Amino acid sequence: MERTVSPLYAAIDLGSNSFHMWIVREVAGTVQTLAKIKRKVRLAAGLNSENKLSIEAMQRGWDCLSLFAERLQDLPASNIRIVGTAALRTAVNAEAFLSKAETILGYPVDIIPGEEEARIIYQGVAHTSGGCGKRLVVDIGGASTEVIIGEGFDTSALTSLKIGCVTWLERYFKDRYLTEANFAAAISAAKTAIAPIVEQYQTLGWQTCVGASGTVQALQEIMLAQGMDEIITLQKLKRMQRQAMQYERLEDLDIEGLTLERALVFPSGLSILIAIFESLGIESMTLAGGALREGMVYEMMSQMRHHDVRERTLQSLQTRFQLDSIHAGNVSDTARALLGSCQSAWSLEPQAHYLLDASTALHEIGTMIEFKKSGEHAAYLIHHSDLPGFTRAQKHLIAELLRRYRENLTSLPEQHALSAQSATRLLRLLRLAVILCHRRDSSHQPPFTLKADDNALSLTLPASWLAANPLTDAELQQEATRQSDMGWPLAIIASE
Amino acid sequence: MERTVSPLYAAIDLGSNSFHMWIVREVAGTVQTLAKIKRKVRLAAGLNSENKLSIEAMQRGWDCLSLFAERLQDLPASNIRIVGTAALRTAVNAEAFLSKAETILGYPVDIIPGEEEARIIYQGVAHTSGGCGKRLVVDIGGASTEVIIGEGFDTSALTSLKIGCVTWLERYFKDRYLTEANFAAAISAAKTAIAPIVEQYQTLGWQTCVGASGTVQALQEIMLAQGMDEIITLQKLKRMQRQAMQYERLEDLDIEGLTLERALVFPSGLSILIAIFESLGIESMTLAGGALREGMVYEMMSQMRHHDVRERTLQSLQTRFQLDSIHAGNVSDTARALLGSCQSAWSLEPQAHYLLDASTALHEIGTMIEFKKSGEHAAYLIHHSDLPGFTRAQKHLIAELLRRYRENLTSLPEQHALSAQSATRLLRLLRLAVILCHRRDSSHQPPFTLKADDNALSLTLPASWLAANPLTDAELQQEATRQSDMGWPLAIIASE
Repeated sequence: MERTVSPLYAAIDLGSNSFHMWIVREVAGTVQTLAKIKRKVRLAAGLNSENKLSIEAMQRGWDCLSLFAERLQDLPASNIRIVGTAALRTAVNAEAFLSKAETILGYPVDIIPGEEEARIIYQGVAHTSGGCGKRLVVDIGGASTEVIIGEGFDTSALTSLKIGCVTWLERYFKDRYLTEANFAAAISAAKTAIAPIVEQYQTLGWQTCVGASGTVQALQEIMLAQGMDEIITLQKLKRMQRQAMQYERLEDLDIEGLTLERALVFPSGLSILIAIFESLGIESMTLAGGALREGMVYEMMSQMRHHDVRERTLQSLQTRFQLDSIHAGNVSDTARALLGSCQSAWSLEPQAHYLLDASTALHEIGTMIEFKKSGEHAAYLIHHSDLPGFTRAQKHLIAELLRRYRENLTSLPEQHALSAQSATRLLRLLRLAVILCHRRDSSHQPPFTLKADDNALSLTLPASWLAANPLTDAELQQEATRQSDMGWPLAIIASE
Repeated sequence: MERTVSPLYAAIDLGSNSFHMWIVREVAGTVQTLAKIKRKVRLAAGLNSENKLSIEAMQRGWDCLSLFAERLQDLPASNIRIVGTAALRTAVNAEAFLSKAETILGYPVDIIPGEEEARIIYQGVAHTSGGCGKRLVVDIGGASTEVIIGEGFDTSALTSLKIGCVTWLERYFKDRYLTEANFAAAISAAKTAIAPIVEQYQTLGWQTCVGASGTVQALQEIMLAQGMDEIITLQKLKRMQRQAMQYERLEDLDIEGLTLERALVFPSGLSILIAIFESLGIESMTLAGGALREGMVYEMMSQMRHHDVRERTLQSLQTRFQLDSIHAGNVSDTARALLGSCQSAWSLEPQAHYLLDASTALHEIGTMIEFKKSGEHAAYLIHHSDLPGFTRAQKHLIAELLRRYRENLTSLPEQHALSAQSATRLLRLLRLAVILCHRRDSSHQPPFTLKADDNALSLTLPASWLAANPLTDAELQQEATRQSDMGWPLAIIASE
């Protein structure tokens, strides 16, 4: 069998702190990771006061690249992208490093300008995050921080600032003390660096804000470990700063949810983030699904440019798991009609609509493993899969809805994607839609009407239809009992 | 989008105790269950001494069929099969039941002769079980027991005996006492029924024996719950009988692993199985992956007739999970070459070869969910998926091998597919093969030689090759440390 177009891609990122190689395979419009290799090369630490890279630092880089090179040999050149960022931009002797690096790799290395880095990061975010309207993106790296405003796949402002969690660590936490004074100096210096772009960015404005990079990732992990929701706010950042200041020195830092690996650059990254929140007046931020490496890979896969990331994700999962997309469409239509009937009584959050769409699109995913526990399997698959366009909290809710899409009904666990009431209501509608579509034939959709009076639902169907469909009738009656037993009244009414 | 050929199939089985409907969808050569509906109609219990079905029993049947009918409406006639078995064969007034049943269903019902039932059961077994050579199949139903000998998809002896776990319950355990006398009478009567076929079957002979039906399923569940392996032997059957006789009456029966639902017909089914083991001289039996309903469905899907069920299963999983089958083939070839080098020193069980094939064919299945914990995901998928052709113990071992196919190495848990030593050895070879194929290019397979000296392995590669492939070299060195740390010496040797 001949492979005409290789589905394999490699993105290599020669960062200021680590070198990363990411090898992926394109499958049905999504990215399957085949290898992730990372080496802490600490290139930036090898820059002297004259911005000259030491020979030792270069050698660490070359050693790492000869490992990477082995895996590149069998990929076509068009499927490989290698970029260098801040440390290599800064190094006055970058050429010396580069010529040997390119010999080792057998491929050219792009030392990309800060704006190009910002542009690619934005593409990585746009390909992996949902939401509409203008988007502010912040990526705090080791030696630079990118700030971008864009909408869809187009950017309107691109900035790379010379502040980073490694450089700020060495400059403001050099003594390793977690003092108020160190934090204040770090925040103030970052604000000075941001100052020139504040007016431009505030004028452009944005509707949503996402953060990439390890600092934001670490914050999310801490927040989840401490039982908070996933929305980063200035208040929470200040709380983190107070938590950190309870420890005297960086090496004592022991915050629940903070891993050892991330601890060293956490105070410096946090300071930069606080400065950005305060300078730009950011209200809330969520974690991006991707950044530089994702942008590099998605740009090589040009056909991945889809106007709606969430829709691409759902279609791709349907394809990958060979779901019956026609049937899923019928269930979605039915669920939407049910939701439409309740909307004036319930006025659910806007995202409830696309969360219900996602749940109906994927409701049979667990049956691809096995029928009996298909709800459990669906929850497992959704929980562990990457769902570009959905936040972690939304993924969690979809998984918990699908765990309960049929058979025994239990109440939903705590979640942060919707109010508890709205989430329960979505679950009730999802289950009804699944039962109403059991015949798997859109031309025989039952002619139902649904009325909501607060939590009480009444579903009316013609008596003749119920008589002609005794299995659906029996399942609806059972469902009415199950929902009512949970304290969610549901009546099935036969009309003449 | 027009559906030209429907991928949906329905099999309905009007059994002596229960009616079953199974609705499936064909996906990439496997069967996805969409619905399983079962009603305890107890048709046989409605037969009087003149073998006349009572009107009440018929009504229970018709009520059930009107539920089933709803789901049949949207399937093409060619994708539906409905059969009646022993109770309907026996009922002198079956016609009266049938004419109304066919009106309700809108489709003909086949009351199949016992030999035809045996033939279809055999197809269900052949499509879902691995193994080669002649196969003895035993299926104990409510009112009949089918005994078949076949090879591949062809049968050489088909018998339907008028003994069943419901009729034997009513005849020999009518007083509900679990006495030695009741068991002896049940076993003896079953032997009398089997006697006429013993000579024919023993002359034909068989290499493997599988059992279908609830009795064998119940035995497996008890054996697993009690920590035994999955092989049913006469000794274990006798032990079960002794366990059962510790209780005075059927309703007291409380054997670990025996569910309430199966308990009632367990002593009668067990008696029949003991009689069959003793009469035919069966040494061991495993549970079949399917029987009557599977046979009905697979016969409708004619293209499913594949000479090797295990190969079909692996190919189908590769397709369903979009695995890179070329790469999997390279890893399989490498693993086979490694195993070949060790075979004279290790002399592994014959099934070790196809278990290693299965593990290599599926080793990347977990990465389709997510890379980081791909071993865990692989184990989850294999554990919960149906793997026609592999026994439960084999599936368990494949799952545990794949849980450990890369990264951290831990020892395998207890399993019953191979000796502990052989299983560990397969794991070591699987991990080596995965590393050796990291470049994903069969034209660059490393020119290795492997030598086994008891548990000690030495893998030799040309020094020049190792120098040119430093990442593989690093991974092999790490693997040597990991295996050696487990007490499984592995040396990587660079040859000139």
